[in-house]
Amino acid sequence: MRPRRVLETALYVDDLERAAAFYTGVMGLRAMFGTDRLVALDAGEGTVLLLFRRGLTAEGLRTDGGWLPPHDGSGPVHVAFAIDREALPAWRTRLSESGVAIESELTWPRGGVSLYFRDPDGHSLELATPGVWQVY
Amino acid sequence: MRPRRVLETALYVDDLERAAAFYTGVMGLRAMFGTDRLVALDAGEGTVLLLFRRGLTAEGLRTDGGWLPPHDGSGPVHVAFAIDREALPAWRTRLSESGVAIESELTWPRGGVSLYFRDPDGHSLELATPGVWQVY
Repeated sequence: MRPRRVLETALYVDDLERAAAFYTGVMGLRAMFGTDRLVALDAGEGTVLLLFRRGLTAEGLRTDGGWLPPHDGSGPVHVAFAIDREALPAWRTRLSESGVAIESELTWPRGGVSLYFRDPDGHSLELATPGVWQVY
Repeated sequence: MRPRRVLETALYVDDLERAAAFYTGVMGLRAMFGTDRLVALDAGEGTVLLLFRRGLTAEGLRTDGGWLPPHDGSGPVHVAFAIDREALPAWRTRLSESGVAIESELTWPRGGVSLYFRDPDGHSLELATPGVWQVY
């Protein structure tokens, strides 16, 4: 028995509006839901990126459907997104035109290529082509 | 232009062996790769869960293929995994038999059900059935 997949990946951000603008504008994700505590983004193929305003989820939340346990995070963490190999040049252009510096470009033993850059909170983002892991 | 999906979700843990044992044993994920800094787990449907030993990635790493930028994280963060609705009873049993307390069970307006519990580092894990988001 195992889960189907990772469904929700959380990032904790200092400025929720700034982060949402980056992930919708530069990354092209679609906002599905938003409150003062979080913005939920459709990150593709049944995955969800949750942007939480840092500190606001450090206490749990009572909802009509039940209790949402507390969580919170700090530090510049890592998240990777899958892209097609053919999309690499277009992503380089998109990042450049958005004023986002590519911090590193790496080729993996399996042939995959990763672009590394930072979101407005300093989180370490990666765009990865097939050939990074056995599963992509 | 947008990514295909979230590919890698990172958790920062104090005891890498303990965390890997939990995610393979209780959660049923398959270890793909491991070093002293990380264990990479196949989390299903082309998603990867990365367990990083907290602190060891706070400096970047030079590899044959290029430079891995630094990242790190702290705090009990949130990650959700997708499960089938029919799998809920079996997960309740698995968690109970593994000595993992269910912290909360929540029903969402769309009908989805979420189980919340903690991993050995206190990260807030969720198992979610269809009916939580538009995309699941």
